[in-house]
Amino acid sequence: SASFASRFSKVNAKSLQTLAALDIFARRHIGPSDSDIAEMLKVVGADSLDALTAKAVPSRIHIKNKTQLGPAMPETEVLERLKFIASKNQLLKSYIGMGYAAAITPPVILRNIMENPAWYTQYTPYQPEISQGRLESLINFQTMIQDLTGLDIANASLLDEGTAAGEAMLMCYSAYNRKKNVFFVDERTFSQTIAVLKTRAEGFGIQVVVGNYESFDFENYKDQLMGVLLQYPNSEGSVVDYSTFAKRVHNAGAMVTVATDLLACALVKPPGEFGADIAFGNSQRFGVPLGYGGPHAAFFAVKDAQKRRMPGRLIGVSKDANGKIAYRLALQTREQHIRREKATSNICTAQALLANMAAMYAVYHGPVRIKAIAERVHKLTSVLASGVTQLEHEVINKESFFDTLTIKVRGGNATIFHTAAVENGINLRKIDATHVGVTLDETVSVKDLTTLLKVFAYGSFAEQYKFGTTTPHTHTTPSIEALVSNVASTANFPVSLTRTSSYLTHKVFNKYHSETEMLRYITALQHKDLSLADAMIPLGSCTMKLNATTEMIPVTWPEFANIHPFVPIDQAQGYAQMHAELEYALSEATGFSHICLQPNSGAQGEYTGLRTITAYFAKRGETNRNVCLIPVSAHGTNPASAAMCGLKVVVVKCEENGNLDLVDLKAKAEQYKNSLAAAMITYPSTYGVFEDTISRACEIVHENGGQVYMDGANLNAQMGLCKPAEIGADVCHLNLHKTFCIPHGGGGPGMGPIGVKPHLAEFLPTHPVVAPTSSVNAIGPVSAAPWGSASILPISWAYLKMMGDDGLRKATQVALLNANYMLKRLAGEYKILFTDANGLCAHEFILDARVFSAVSHVEAIDIAKRLHDYGFHSPTMSFPVPNTLMIEPTESESKVELDRFCDAMLKIREEIRDIEEGRQPVEGNVLKRAPHPIDVVAANEWDRPYTREQAAYPVASLRRNKFWPTVARVDDTYGDRNLICSCPPIEEYEE
Amino acid sequence: SASFASRFSKVNAKSLQTLAALDIFARRHIGPSDSDIAEMLKVVGADSLDALTAKAVPSRIHIKNKTQLGPAMPETEVLERLKFIASKNQLLKSYIGMGYAAAITPPVILRNIMENPAWYTQYTPYQPEISQGRLESLINFQTMIQDLTGLDIANASLLDEGTAAGEAMLMCYSAYNRKKNVFFVDERTFSQTIAVLKTRAEGFGIQVVVGNYESFDFENYKDQLMGVLLQYPNSEGSVVDYSTFAKRVHNAGAMVTVATDLLACALVKPPGEFGADIAFGNSQRFGVPLGYGGPHAAFFAVKDAQKRRMPGRLIGVSKDANGKIAYRLALQTREQHIRREKATSNICTAQALLANMAAMYAVYHGPVRIKAIAERVHKLTSVLASGVTQLEHEVINKESFFDTLTIKVRGGNATIFHTAAVENGINLRKIDATHVGVTLDETVSVKDLTTLLKVFAYGSFAEQYKFGTTTPHTHTTPSIEALVSNVASTANFPVSLTRTSSYLTHKVFNKYHSETEMLRYITALQHKDLSLADAMIPLGSCTMKLNATTEMIPVTWPEFANIHPFVPIDQAQGYAQMHAELEYALSEATGFSHICLQPNSGAQGEYTGLRTITAYFAKRGETNRNVCLIPVSAHGTNPASAAMCGLKVVVVKCEENGNLDLVDLKAKAEQYKNSLAAAMITYPSTYGVFEDTISRACEIVHENGGQVYMDGANLNAQMGLCKPAEIGADVCHLNLHKTFCIPHGGGGPGMGPIGVKPHLAEFLPTHPVVAPTSSVNAIGPVSAAPWGSASILPISWAYLKMMGDDGLRKATQVALLNANYMLKRLAGEYKILFTDANGLCAHEFILDARVFSAVSHVEAIDIAKRLHDYGFHSPTMSFPVPNTLMIEPTESESKVELDRFCDAMLKIREEIRDIEEGRQPVEGNVLKRAPHPIDVVAANEWDRPYTREQAAYPVASLRRNKFWPTVARVDDTYGDRNLICSCPPIEEYEE
Ligand SMILES: Cc1ncc(COP(=O)(O)O)c(C=O)c1O
Ligand SMILES: Cc1ncc(COP(=O)(O)O)c(C=O)c1O
Ligand SMILES: O=C([O-])O
Repeated sequence: SASFASRFSKVNAKSLQTLAALDIFARRHIGPSDSDIAEMLKVVGADSLDALTAKAVPSRIHIKNKTQLGPAMPETEVLERLKFIASKNQLLKSYIGMGYAAAITPPVILRNIMENPAWYTQYTPYQPEISQGRLESLINFQTMIQDLTGLDIANASLLDEGTAAGEAMLMCYSAYNRKKNVFFVDERTFSQTIAVLKTRAEGFGIQVVVGNYESFDFENYKDQLMGVLLQYPNSEGSVVDYSTFAKRVHNAGAMVTVATDLLACALVKPPGEFGADIAFGNSQRFGVPLGYGGPHAAFFAVKDAQKRRMPGRLIGVSKDANGKIAYRLALQTREQHIRREKATSNICTAQALLANMAAMYAVYHGPVRIKAIAERVHKLTSVLASGVTQLEHEVINKESFFDTLTIKVRGGNATIFHTAAVENGINLRKIDATHVGVTLDETVSVKDLTTLLKVFAYGSFAEQYKFGTTTPHTHTTPSIEALVSNVASTANFPVSLTRTSSYLTHKVFNKYHSETEMLRYITALQHKDLSLADAMIPLGSCTMKLNATTEMIPVTWPEFANIHPFVPIDQAQGYAQMHAELEYALSEATGFSHICLQPNSGAQGEYTGLRTITAYFAKRGETNRNVCLIPVSAHGTNPASAAMCGLKVVVVKCEENGNLDLVDLKAKAEQYKNSLAAAMITYPSTYGVFEDTISRACEIVHENGGQVYMDGANLNAQMGLCKPAEIGADVCHLNLHKTFCIPHGGGGPGMGPIGVKPHLAEFLPTHPVVAPTSSVNAIGPVSAAPWGSASILPISWAYLKMMGDDGLRKATQVALLNANYMLKRLAGEYKILFTDANGLCAHEFILDARVFSAVSHVEAIDIAKRLHDYGFHSPTMSFPVPNTLMIEPTESESKVELDRFCDAMLKIREEIRDIEEGRQPVEGNVLKRAPHPIDVVAANEWDRPYTREQAAYPVASLRRNKFWPTVARVDDTYGDRNLICSCPPIEEYEE
Repeated sequence: SASFASRFSKVNAKSLQTLAALDIFARRHIGPSDSDIAEMLKVVGADSLDALTAKAVPSRIHIKNKTQLGPAMPETEVLERLKFIASKNQLLKSYIGMGYAAAITPPVILRNIMENPAWYTQYTPYQPEISQGRLESLINFQTMIQDLTGLDIANASLLDEGTAAGEAMLMCYSAYNRKKNVFFVDERTFSQTIAVLKTRAEGFGIQVVVGNYESFDFENYKDQLMGVLLQYPNSEGSVVDYSTFAKRVHNAGAMVTVATDLLACALVKPPGEFGADIAFGNSQRFGVPLGYGGPHAAFFAVKDAQKRRMPGRLIGVSKDANGKIAYRLALQTREQHIRREKATSNICTAQALLANMAAMYAVYHGPVRIKAIAERVHKLTSVLASGVTQLEHEVINKESFFDTLTIKVRGGNATIFHTAAVENGINLRKIDATHVGVTLDETVSVKDLTTLLKVFAYGSFAEQYKFGTTTPHTHTTPSIEALVSNVASTANFPVSLTRTSSYLTHKVFNKYHSETEMLRYITALQHKDLSLADAMIPLGSCTMKLNATTEMIPVTWPEFANIHPFVPIDQAQGYAQMHAELEYALSEATGFSHICLQPNSGAQGEYTGLRTITAYFAKRGETNRNVCLIPVSAHGTNPASAAMCGLKVVVVKCEENGNLDLVDLKAKAEQYKNSLAAAMITYPSTYGVFEDTISRACEIVHENGGQVYMDGANLNAQMGLCKPAEIGADVCHLNLHKTFCIPHGGGGPGMGPIGVKPHLAEFLPTHPVVAPTSSVNAIGPVSAAPWGSASILPISWAYLKMMGDDGLRKATQVALLNANYMLKRLAGEYKILFTDANGLCAHEFILDARVFSAVSHVEAIDIAKRLHDYGFHSPTMSFPVPNTLMIEPTESESKVELDRFCDAMLKIREEIRDIEEGRQPVEGNVLKRAPHPIDVVAANEWDRPYTREQAAYPVASLRRNKFWPTVARVDDTYGDRNLICSCPPIEEYEE
């Protein structure tokens, strides 16, 4: 890695400093100017950033080996260098399929959603009053999935098709109360899906049986079978009629889960109509770039009976305080307090931005055009089938296909055709020595088809040898014109499987088909949503920092966007270099020797990290080690991930001051000395405090034979100041969508790579198609793609490169300063829940709203909603402590914005005091009735104990510029009681 | 051009239609679906689009030679093809200077302004209540220009530096009431500026004297000298102290105009401080891409005494009906009714979008960083000067420079170094056989400097011959490190010229320096402005149609964006091909044999076209032909352009029904038979009607020896249905920012190419640096760059390519349908001013508000402002007839949107009836008090004769989605009386 160090860093002769480029990113990324910092330091009572750091960060964990990332590289140069790296990726036309198909992103969606900060910087819509835009879009997504799969209810996305398969299996598992443990998978399911599924199964001791569904022996698994997984169309390309089999599965008391393809569902009978209880798949081909594997939104739909068991976020329809229709996250508690140790799923961050893109693709095209696209793809495939048959190849699935052919090649040597393909700028799917696969998509043109046929016209090696000159010997290529006229106009799959039901009938899919209408729809939704383009989003534990334009630009470069995840590795050398450099940088940042870029969310990172630990103990024969200690304050994903790895969760107490209770930790560690596998520790703690006992805590775990898993969600407080590996962690995940600037996208994408110490490295996950490791001890894959959501990794790469060692360190220091500055400004009027011995917090802190309960009855939620009236997103509500607000400003917020927020909080405190002191009633006051959308303050009637202007303009600056909530407080109970998760009839919106 | 025809069109075998790509643009560009069209045809009373066309368009002008543009090309393929063409441009590093310097566009500005439809689809801010965002940004631009030039008042941009020079000269001319006619220009002014200036001078008979200012003979031009032009720093690169000379000019009773450089002004004494009355220049280097010449915003600033004579748009500060601060176009009548025949300027469309970018660049950097950038560029130049001197070249201006060096090369053969430069990926400025020029800019790195020195180290051809192997023989290159330490830390220009005054001191330039703050500032302004992303902008005569994403994407590709306008022509072959293809397509569209792409606005096109006519007559010796007939209804630019060409404007009457009065035309044509030069006719007329007398009108003009100039602003009604050249026009300009989809950018950019018949072709303009024509009879250049704002031409190219013959024709038909559908829906309740014999309009129509004056006192402006409350931009107000509204929907608006607009208009008619029938008072009613911003309807007090909800939500759908005006009606009179055109103190905003 020395070479990477030198490649990553850039030395600038001192004497040339006066000529150095001026587009230095750190000063754009960090909010406060140096003079602001000086002022704020005074408030905080520190002489310098270093002095503050020295006070806030326990000395025994101070960084030992400073990061070696080199000086910051100017913005312009970073783009140049990344373009250079990207140019090493080769853009061939890939017909590899396997759940990934090239797609046309409608430019209006590309530019106005994917490349638009107003969309990509949004947070998960936990605050529905300022999120009605993306909530509507996500409900469009759900409706689209329900329609196309023929099922009753769909969620708002999962991470990828592989993990969705795992979720489906585990839903079956829990549906039967974990009493059955056999899950059958048809062998013609994508290999990466099976592999991810098997990884998931292990933690639960589920037996995954892979075989041909036609010969599945029900008797053999009597009472043990909980579910089956069928791919439709299957990996061979066949559209199979599973209805009889599905009945047998149901008769056997098990569930039918179907992995399917959205575009195929526009033509073929949908899974819901032949007995599927669950259907899932990848929505990528609905307008989302391939991106070398991601990010894309997986979809997941179930029968109504299963809805309350469904993993992931679900958007529902409810109403607001005035009875106006309003969307919001349904059954929210399912997520915020994930089922913890009882969980079969740990999904948190999903793929909202990509789900929005796919939904908008359906809105833009509508049912007529979606069908036309599907028919065209099918027709192209039919023509190809006829052509390759004429060229004397055998199409194995010629009786039944949608867009994919499995071809037994003439002469039996597949290599010829793979070579010919690459010679012609094409990738075919590698199946085995005699078969190749081809999957077509909407980007394929007649010219592409001609080239494909030319490839299949190549002669044998013998013929090449005999007749070849410098041009290959080819058989006569059939003319496309002739082929077209010969191809039947009917579909090439069983008539019984022709789709007869309608879909996308809702008005929203039949309205916005001109680019102008589409742009306005996107814009109208966008105006309803508060994003980082509007105001700070001070969500504790979420690190809503700047997602800079320079970081985002490369994501949609064709060199990164248009690569299939399973191309030959030599075609993705740009990615390989970027990955290697990013691994180097993250390794420097954390102190871990190895980084794994596969997990595509923080929770996935947790899962992967814990699995390396269990694999480590397994190899050492210590299979008895199955206890995982987790502090009571931990994020819900921690116990959930532990449970999914087959670990037994033992809860560790916290002291009253918020610190981990070392005594309890020690006691539990010793109690489970022989079975201790791991402890999961978030650092700084979810209470926002640097505990100086952290090293000791790690020692205790190690002394008792366990491994330390550090939850890196709060790494933004550590970067450049300390390193998880030096502190004592054996493994740690990094939410790249927090500390490393990947935008939250309104609830995903994200990336959760993990770092491990050398002893765990051999267990890092592999992948069945493109192996990122050659270790024989590697665990199975945790994501469908070898490098997860690869195309967003350039964001973190660029951030690290543009900041350099000094910038990163300063960013962390300012993150601490910003938090402590706010703490100091608010401490007089609000109760701060936890601080360290110096009265300092780390990068976030918690305000206690419980103190208000006695007199004013004000709760955290009232403050949160009232903040919307001030144009702000609220802080994190009731995590980790109920009825509190956790504030994390990040380094990117300027002093002006921090002050604007603090002023709002102080004004709200006055409003609370008005209640406390009887000037305002306990019910119906400005907090309880917050937020106030425009139509409320502009209503003819006004009978409230406060004025309209108090409601709307509590501070004067709002008159100049204000972000408005669009609905009043949303009624969650009503919505959950009347669960509706698809688009409501349009009339309901109007008065 | 046959080869272009085949290149432009694309033949698709019929049998392959079922496999044709589906991303067909026409159905995205045209708003109404086919079923909508069928419904609308019923309302209009036509059986088909063709039937409507047959009725609306006079049969004698029906198209004779159908356009031959071929079938539509799918969106994806268009981008592929354009990328291929673009790749023929070579991206060398250009040090050519001459008013164009590479710049770093801050990515946050690139993506959120230049690539953001919410900014680029705005119209000129004539409606201030829904335009406060860009008005604020433009006033930032004006403030920045005032500060940097040291002058009192600046306008909101001009078209380019060359035309700005012309404007300056003509301001001097009119300042002395056209009594003096000598204008002196220092010879070290950019050659293209002098050339454009000379072109402009001709029409007025002004004598441009070019010479060395030091030897200017005041005596010789006594009482004739009206002004002088000095370049500062001059074209040689020297920063000259002009103060003594300026005094002499003033003593001679003339004005001092200075062409200057914004970045230099950060270091050197600004023109306003050494006596300039006028300063102008190109703001491009403030963050705007080179774009092969444009679009960029020229700036223009004057002393207070001259302000009411200043050309172009001026933003001023005023207040709204409630006394709240509000921006608006000041002295508006100056523009809307341009001085017509008394004009010395015809500027209308300017460069608002680019002015906004430049202003945002200053907001982002602030004074400290702007100064740092200037200092760094200067330091780089100093190092270079020292290096080339060490390499035995002579720096002519070594005593005084900012960023530009004129170098007499060692050995005296400049060719060696130009060759060496290109060999090293560099362009130097070509001066003459022995001199080369170098201009540095903020993108230059130390590495670039090293390469530059390497070029200057090349040996003579003799040395190459003697010592050369395959690598060139070079002298020893000095090390940059050594050079840096030798370079004086003081500036390399006269101490007397060091800037001491401060600039950019206003808070707005000292606040938004983090990317987050910048993004939020841009977003906050954006939310105040209605654009096509929000709602239709039915501005008659403006053609606010879709500016599609696919059309916009190529504009910011580096291959188009990063090319200097004066690179050797072989490096711009991509542009050459795109230009040639676009010329072919426009020629097909209009029937003209030749197209000239130089004019960068419609008005510039008028001027250029008329100049070709005067040149034509001059060559024929008919210099007596100096009368231009112009109908009374013409746009103000028409008579202004005519006057600027030295033509005498004679006004032709219109009939009561709006038609051109043929009898009067004939009478005038015959009256001026011997002096008739031209008639300018807008077709369809500015009254929105296809007159069937148009051919006869053209005949009359021709019969009397004149030429027909057609104003092509309304070409959107003709495209594919008829052709100006076939109708009888000899020349016509095309507003590419209307019919051909270049976005309006909030008041520019635009492009106004002209088409001419063969007899005029030899007179089309040339250019002194890169000649686009070799005709000896070419007129001088009309723009600073040979192809005007070249980088936006791909927009029109892509539009034409994606629509194809059928799409373009259908678009026009739907434009007619949309207008007539609205006309029919509104005709019952509003008086339509003009229609044709069939009761039809063309693509726009006029509503007469004068009928309301007697009873309700409602005027057009009240309806316009009330429309803002319905979330709409108003139609064109009082053009061409006072107190009317002209509505042009374009083909891109859907039926839903047309209905929404008509419903609003009908509801407003009811509101008017409430006044007419006494239910509402004549004063203080909902129309007179419109528009209603949020703070008005949410105010505690309400004492109006209508309810808040009537004010805010006159129709129910507004509750779901509404664009809000941000200020109440703006007081123009107050503003003009108290003219303030720079940023007001920030406190004035707050209560
Ligand atoms: C402390 C902590 N751990 C884990 C997670 C889970 O990360 P992700 O949402 O990326 O799965 C979060 C997410 O907010 C978190 O705050
Ligand atoms: C009829 C007519 N002619 C000429 C022009 C001038 O065009 P430009 O603004 O591009 O200079 C306009 C602009 O609106 C117009 O409407
Ligand atoms: O795609 C459309 O049907 O407009």
